[in-house]
Amino acid sequence: MKIGFIGLGQMGSGMAARLQASGQPLTVFNRSPEKMQGLIDLGAKAAQSLGDFADADVIFTMLADDHAVNALVMGEDGLLAQMRPGAVHVSCSTISVALSAQLTEAHTRAGQEYVAAPVFGRPDAAAAGKLYLAVAGKPATIERLQPLFAHMGQHSFVVAEMPEKANLVKLSGNFLIAAVIESLGEAMALVEKGGVDRHAYLELLTSSLFNVPLYKNYGGLIADRKFTPPGFAAPLGQKDMRLVQAAAENLNVPLPLASLLHDRFIRLAAEGGASRDWSAIGILAAQDAGLSS
Amino acid sequence: MKIGFIGLGQMGSGMAARLQASGQPLTVFNRSPEKMQGLIDLGAKAAQSLGDFADADVIFTMLADDHAVNALVMGEDGLLAQMRPGAVHVSCSTISVALSAQLTEAHTRAGQEYVAAPVFGRPDAAAAGKLYLAVAGKPATIERLQPLFAHMGQHSFVVAEMPEKANLVKLSGNFLIAAVIESLGEAMALVEKGGVDRHAYLELLTSSLFNVPLYKNYGGLIADRKFTPPGFAAPLGQKDMRLVQAAAENLNVPLPLASLLHDRFIRLAAEGGASRDWSAIGILAAQDAGLSS
Amino acid sequence: MKIGFIGLGQMGSGMAARLQASGQPLTVFNRSPEKMQGLIDLGAKAAQSLGDFADADVIFTMLADDHAVNALVMGEDGLLAQMRPGAVHVSCSTISVALSAQLTEAHTRAGQEYVAAPVFGRPDAAAAGKLYLAVAGKPATIERLQPLFAHMGQHSFVVAEMPEKANLVKLSGNFLIAAVIESLGEAMALVEKGGVDRHAYLELLTSSLFNVPLYKNYGGLIADRKFTPPGFAAPLGQKDMRLVQAAAENLNVPLPLASLLHDRFIRLAAEGGASRDWSAIGILAAQDAGLSS
Amino acid sequence: MKIGFIGLGQMGSGMAARLQASGQPLTVFNRSPEKMQGLIDLGAKAAQSLGDFADADVIFTMLADDHAVNALVMGEDGLLAQMRPGAVHVSCSTISVALSAQLTEAHTRAGQEYVAAPVFGRPDAAAAGKLYLAVAGKPATIERLQPLFAHMGQHSFVVAEMPEKANLVKLSGNFLIAAVIESLGEAMALVEKGGVDRHAYLELLTSSLFNVPLYKNYGGLIADRKFTPPGFAAPLGQKDMRLVQAAAENLNVPLPLASLLHDRFIRLAAEGGASRDWSAIGILAAQDAGLSS
Repeated sequence: MKIGFIGLGQMGSGMAARLQASGQPLTVFNRSPEKMQGLIDLGAKAAQSLGDFADADVIFTMLADDHAVNALVMGEDGLLAQMRPGAVHVSCSTISVALSAQLTEAHTRAGQEYVAAPVFGRPDAAAAGKLYLAVAGKPATIERLQPLFAHMGQHSFVVAEMPEKANLVKLSGNFLIAAVIESLGEAMALVEKGGVDRHAYLELLTSSLFNVPLYKNYGGLIADRKFTPPGFAAPLGQKDMRLVQAAAENLNVPLPLASLLHDRFIRLAAEGGASRDWSAIGILAAQDAGLSS
Repeated sequence: MKIGFIGLGQMGSGMAARLQASGQPLTVFNRSPEKMQGLIDLGAKAAQSLGDFADADVIFTMLADDHAVNALVMGEDGLLAQMRPGAVHVSCSTISVALSAQLTEAHTRAGQEYVAAPVFGRPDAAAAGKLYLAVAGKPATIERLQPLFAHMGQHSFVVAEMPEKANLVKLSGNFLIAAVIESLGEAMALVEKGGVDRHAYLELLTSSLFNVPLYKNYGGLIADRKFTPPGFAAPLGQKDMRLVQAAAENLNVPLPLASLLHDRFIRLAAEGGASRDWSAIGILAAQDAGLSS
Repeated sequence: MKIGFIGLGQMGSGMAARLQASGQPLTVFNRSPEKMQGLIDLGAKAAQSLGDFADADVIFTMLADDHAVNALVMGEDGLLAQMRPGAVHVSCSTISVALSAQLTEAHTRAGQEYVAAPVFGRPDAAAAGKLYLAVAGKPATIERLQPLFAHMGQHSFVVAEMPEKANLVKLSGNFLIAAVIESLGEAMALVEKGGVDRHAYLELLTSSLFNVPLYKNYGGLIADRKFTPPGFAAPLGQKDMRLVQAAAENLNVPLPLASLLHDRFIRLAAEGGASRDWSAIGILAAQDAGLSS
Repeated sequence: MKIGFIGLGQMGSGMAARLQASGQPLTVFNRSPEKMQGLIDLGAKAAQSLGDFADADVIFTMLADDHAVNALVMGEDGLLAQMRPGAVHVSCSTISVALSAQLTEAHTRAGQEYVAAPVFGRPDAAAAGKLYLAVAGKPATIERLQPLFAHMGQHSFVVAEMPEKANLVKLSGNFLIAAVIESLGEAMALVEKGGVDRHAYLELLTSSLFNVPLYKNYGGLIADRKFTPPGFAAPLGQKDMRLVQAAAENLNVPLPLASLLHDRFIRLAAEGGASRDWSAIGILAAQDAGLSS
């Protein structure tokens, strides 16, 4: 199976390295070509343009947002135009439910296949092949891809046949994580202003009911006020909350907590938080309580 | 050490049974005397009135709310009047920060001691001695009580010397749990309306990033719409959100998510949810989305 | 001056009738041609297609949403292609800030002019020429159009030169009105459940501090539970809240109250409120309080 | 009729002056005696203690909050103990529904009468006799008091027989005003960041749909960032939102907008806003948008 991988950011470079370790021929591409060097050093071939993916059997993409994916796939001489009939586009990016539906239709019309496989996990999990994948697409195709998924993640959950449902699940998952961040931020602001050390408090929480890496990691970032460098940048979090709400509005599902979270990210952006980790919304409660950082 | 235990509800009866297992003489009391039988069968002595605690060294109380604790302790011929100088009142109830401060002062003035030891965990954890305790009081006293705490919980966290800080921590913990319930409720409503099975979705979540009993248990209750019999009744959850907000207002800490949760409980109460588990707020999002239960 | 008017819905038909009363030659167009009859009866000429606006000096459009305006103007053989150089498009629809900016650019490139003139007021005010207009465009052009605006509204406020700013003002105004509806809905639910008659309560409010038609009219609709036929349909209100939030996100302005209102409309939609007046969000509080309608 | 008036703050001094103008004998009292001088100059008699109200027929009170009213009336040698049987206590303070119910019961048991007559309006309206009163009590008593009410206000609305209902109406009214402040604050932040002058925007609003002093006055304070000296101090606004929510919780009425407003006041308090007018919550949206004041 000839594999392609497009998008070598913090997440993509780790994921591509895991695919390279599968032993199958891998061609990579990135808009900023210098980011390809690491994969080339591992043995991957660098594509000069999307045309180099014409003979690929399966092409993974891991890009920042709808705009990037749309431009790459649908643009002039884009991926859609380059892929051969029968080839599979596995989209790992966190994109909108609506775009996922459009991509499904476009690839189908072109005689190609589209699988959505958004991932849960931060860059270190990507590098370690410890991601979780929410996968949706044709069952036979997914079965064929499982060995590749197994290199990237510790588990792949098959959500449905319609690819867009995997994107909905992924977005809802990021909503749940953002809810954890906000709730920890509020709780820590409360106890800290009440005179309880926030690190000791976090230790109590994560040694008992909240004994799970998610709470430990995000709680630790909030307690340490350590938001740079970002593992997942705030503007991406904001984008995801926007996509959650867009999906929710399309489905007529009012989500007051998602609205609260979205507003938190907008405020963080207004305060110049673009280069911080998305967990930085977790200090807004402390800020509103008049606690100095 | 002569031990007393007052309040044999779902939680208290399990906790008292664990203390009885410590081998030390235990006297129990409950307003509805029939609930004492189980403990008597285990070997505990039944008090006829609070006067029977006059020679106790340490008295645990586990009651429903501020009103009950206040009446028991401060009322005429109340616990405060009965306890001997030097005796310790260990209050395990989830009460307000303000009442905890008042009890500290009252016991101190009476030459007695007051320790706050609110607990995390549901009735099954209480019966199994698997609670988590947030403890605050004089260090020497807490050290003396540790063997008893060890019978009741799998871990005791010493929060501070001022008892009320343990109550603040406990309330903040219940806020965090309610936030988990609300976020799961919203996420499940969203994916379900998008065509994803909510049980499969929960399985995905709790096999990956949210692999912790808290999410499994509450997620399961929401997915199953199984809110009776209550492990922790909705009015108690509502009370705790009110106390969180009262503490937050006293400390000047605005908590928008706590406000949202509080409103959810008020709405549940208006819908007649008094006999349901507090996780029933987790179906309000589905209800607002027009999903039939 | 040859005038065109496109979009003869509840609002547009009243506005066009007022322009017809100005005595200048008026050509009208509507997708459903039967709605043109009223204007024809008043002396207007009916266009067969957009080509009939080729010699118009100024063309007003009053359509439902971005989609309709975009299709009409930018579509194949659309208004943009039909208008002569120097002609003015006056867009009265409540559309997004973003689309208004795009229209400005498109008309300018085509040597045409674009003026945004969204209106405040319900159908009766449109028919009576009692609207308020928020106008933005080139000063000289606006001055030239003032006599026409004077036929449609009791006052035109010149907001700025950039047309999109008038749309921002319009959207913010609809946000303010929706806030009035929600606040009245919550206040009435509260006092009614406390045993105060809601009609008497509204009389008290609107005879004192809130003595203004806005509170009287919307308060009356809520008190009467009279949401059909809609003066302004709920889906349009929902659309406007979405556009307010989109504009706010683009400008990095978190608006928690706008988020709350948006969620209210989504919920109303989930309950099947599409055919009701947007003031129907004003009974959700009563509903949550367990009050029967 | 011998009249008493207790509480000569910004509001009370104006109200008492209006009663003095009624020509009936007036005795006044204030904790800080120097504030009585203005009334003495107008001809009122100064009480040395509450005992001087023993022969009063009707005693008005206008105090800051529940605590002050409770202490004055129920405290040792308090008003309750001093009033003669048959005398009427007219409580104009904005207090909780619960305290109003307790006062009703206490005065009734003492053979006295209790009327709630909370007022709408700021200090200038009090001085000009232009307040609005929400009155509840026995119909015959209210009728007897109407001439006095007519000196204080431009209109008295008889709400109900149970006094506490007037307090509920008053609290709900302050909620509505706070909602106006918040909505104006959000709308102005939005348009200002979009490049529209906030003063011109307010002029547009208040010349059209929002043509009412409430919007003009509060909008003006927000546009001018003029929050000192306070006409109604922020801590009083915070107290009222707390009382609205307490009443709402007792009645099982979830009020999400009231919750939002309450949080705004808590945040203002955390930022040190105690000496500002309550309309200062109207700049929090601008602050969150990164607009400098």
